[in-house]
Amino acid sequence: MSKTPALPASLKQFLVKGNELFLPGISIDCVIFGFHENTLKLLLLDSAKSNKWTLPGGFVLKSEDINDAAYRVLLERTGLNDIYLKQFDVFGQPNRTDASVHKTTFEQYGSKIPKDHCMIQRFVSVGYFALIDYTNFSIQNDPINSVYDWKGIEQVKHLPIEHDHGAIIQKALESLRTQLAYLPIGKNLLPKKFTMPELQKLYETILNKPLDRRNFQRKMLGFGILNKLNEARKGGAHKSPFLYTFNDKKYQKALKEGLYGSW
Amino acid sequence: MSKTPALPASLKQFLVKGNELFLPGISIDCVIFGFHENTLKLLLLDSAKSNKWTLPGGFVLKSEDINDAAYRVLLERTGLNDIYLKQFDVFGQPNRTDASVHKTTFEQYGSKIPKDHCMIQRFVSVGYFALIDYTNFSIQNDPINSVYDWKGIEQVKHLPIEHDHGAIIQKALESLRTQLAYLPIGKNLLPKKFTMPELQKLYETILNKPLDRRNFQRKMLGFGILNKLNEARKGGAHKSPFLYTFNDKKYQKALKEGLYGSW
Repeated sequence: MSKTPALPASLKQFLVKGNELFLPGISIDCVIFGFHENTLKLLLLDSAKSNKWTLPGGFVLKSEDINDAAYRVLLERTGLNDIYLKQFDVFGQPNRTDASVHKTTFEQYGSKIPKDHCMIQRFVSVGYFALIDYTNFSIQNDPINSVYDWKGIEQVKHLPIEHDHGAIIQKALESLRTQLAYLPIGKNLLPKKFTMPELQKLYETILNKPLDRRNFQRKMLGFGILNKLNEARKGGAHKSPFLYTFNDKKYQKALKEGLYGSW
Repeated sequence: MSKTPALPASLKQFLVKGNELFLPGISIDCVIFGFHENTLKLLLLDSAKSNKWTLPGGFVLKSEDINDAAYRVLLERTGLNDIYLKQFDVFGQPNRTDASVHKTTFEQYGSKIPKDHCMIQRFVSVGYFALIDYTNFSIQNDPINSVYDWKGIEQVKHLPIEHDHGAIIQKALESLRTQLAYLPIGKNLLPKKFTMPELQKLYETILNKPLDRRNFQRKMLGFGILNKLNEARKGGAHKSPFLYTFNDKKYQKALKEGLYGSW
């Protein structure tokens, strides 16, 4: 005879104190893109109850700034810290989440969630995204959803995704791609010294399409954020083995004002 | 002896049914920029109770999409319709609103607002902005806040502003300016045929700084969204009296993909 497992302490607190602790009506979803050696991946968790994948997410404490909540949620749910999160959109369709999934989470422990609990009410979700080098982080699993995994961007399209998280992922990807047009990218993703083809490969990976070598180089140099070094990559087979590095000051300025900010 | 005025019907409904009708914890604020003949203004309403200016805003109905709520709020509060609203940020500091202002609204009618009413609880606000030609719209005042007015952008800095609406306005202005770097602007703000100096004046007004004529022209033409007409503005004193018009197809494409979208 199988015994009903005991409700974990963290879930019990959420069940009993959820409405008291958290702001009603609003949640957070984090879209964490990972890049390493020309591969773009996405951090998802396997909700064992529904056999669907979800984004790491959570609620906002009653006295907490919403941006602080995003960092706390990410840390608690994945162990990831020191990541720059960018708010990119708000998701507020009335029926965007499936409350039955949340009910099932508690029912497997023989517990019922009250009808007015914030988790099964409607909530509007604020989306945050980040792009990190995933080899720099090791994921910690949480007690509720046991399996975190990096999934290739193309692979994600074929996975079953919970709630409206598929639309959130798509919108985050569009925001990341749009951002390439007006903000610099590459710091913490590329080695300190890199070649133009390596930088181009980063853009091609995010955009998922090949780019013209000459146009790319002309455009990148036009941004004025690169320093060309008096060094070449040894042993490379590339036509442009010159090494570049980001000009820190100009990179930071462009991050604040945009690549074409100086009208 | 002065008599306490009767509570208006719309306010009474909000007082009695507010928690039943609206999603808790979330609100909407609209930053409506108006442009006409080289002047940039902002639509504010004078909250007679506090002698401070506020943004038109409101709450989200329990079964309503948040974007639909933004359009409804704007229509109800200002009579403005057919405006493209762009979500630009979320404002979620714990003490961003001053509940005493909302209490006063009801106290002047001899009514008290319940402590758990959504209006005096903490709420996170989603910011939307728009840029319109303000001569195309006539404002309708609402029963709660009687005075709407267009205020010059520079003038706004010296006005007393309610809650964190000053920060919301500042962020909206930054978003509008950043957007100039990657999205086209000018349709519905300029006449169908315009000169390069007229287009430049629009950018200068939004950026609040003079731009170099040659650089501006080179950059604008580089975007590929303009058609040069075989006509000149008659009687103008400008050096470049040639008339231009937006290439509709390319303008729409750039609105979707960004001005430099085609990497």
